[in-house]
Amino acid sequence: MAHIDLGNDLPGIRGPMMFRPETAKPLNEMVDVLLRGPHTLTPGERELIATYVSARNDCRYCQTIHGAIAAHHLGGDEDLIAHVKQDPQRAAISDKLKALLVIAGKTADGGRNVTAADVDQARRHGATDLEIHDAVLIAAVFCLCNRYVDGLATWAPDDPDFYRQRAALVAERGYSLATITARE
Amino acid sequence: MAHIDLGNDLPGIRGPMMFRPETAKPLNEMVDVLLRGPHTLTPGERELIATYVSARNDCRYCQTIHGAIAAHHLGGDEDLIAHVKQDPQRAAISDKLKALLVIAGKTADGGRNVTAADVDQARRHGATDLEIHDAVLIAAVFCLCNRYVDGLATWAPDDPDFYRQRAALVAERGYSLATITARE
Repeated sequence: MAHIDLGNDLPGIRGPMMFRPETAKPLNEMVDVLLRGPHTLTPGERELIATYVSARNDCRYCQTIHGAIAAHHLGGDEDLIAHVKQDPQRAAISDKLKALLVIAGKTADGGRNVTAADVDQARRHGATDLEIHDAVLIAAVFCLCNRYVDGLATWAPDDPDFYRQRAALVAERGYSLATITARE
Repeated sequence: MAHIDLGNDLPGIRGPMMFRPETAKPLNEMVDVLLRGPHTLTPGERELIATYVSARNDCRYCQTIHGAIAAHHLGGDEDLIAHVKQDPQRAAISDKLKALLVIAGKTADGGRNVTAADVDQARRHGATDLEIHDAVLIAAVFCLCNRYVDGLATWAPDDPDFYRQRAALVAERGYSLATITARE
């Protein structure tokens, strides 16, 4: 049971988002730009960064829903998602994405952990300044979301199909619209 | 020097915000709602939560600018800000704010640390569900901002007067407008 009366029984971040739509609106807009806006990283790659950080922060709801959205974008390959969460440096992803996941993981542990050598390594594998910036910001945004979800003790469904179905909706409509849809 | 070429020499979060205005806009909007919107907690109290979390996360730019903004709202009492950062439970603030700072600090360390007893303690001192929600979300948002600022290795001015002057501008205009002003 959540720490406060959210006035609804939506799971994960959606409960407090419906409780406080004034802050949900800009948060969803920011996530839509970062994970779905025009980019040189695919939506699947960006969702993998969100999933990896959420797993590192041990947030069950976020790592499961963003893992499901990443899988949706990546042809349904749920084994790849599990591999990236557990051991990204040996997963079947590009060297560039591996280097960006190092930066994202260190950002999640605390921004000062990111070194010039980490950034150089990403650049050597072709990462642009925007990609490095967004890896840091995606990690930072999910440090927000993970703490928001768990700091209020929201609940998370057990059924993997719940996340698969929600993932299809979010992949189709985006975060802002999928949130509004939930309120109708 | 920042890890990437931001294309500007603005300090702290303002450098990457100018580099990526698409994400800066919703982030500033969210911070304006949380720290400056209509509320039962004063802007000074909410800035104290932001300052305390930023100090706990060891983010020099954020703790200094938000400390200056808190001081601006609280009659220029910079000693109070220093006391809250170091030892909030013995500072000259309300018992309700002390209890909300416990929740905010635990949220910053990881959302699962917040207990039902922490929330009950805040309620006993008169905190509402919205105040508890916003203490968690302010803490979470500054976990974002602190990591964004330090993960990209942005610079922070040394001169306390820089922060005092910027604080006056932000207190007058708000985050969104103060950021746009910086771009003109």
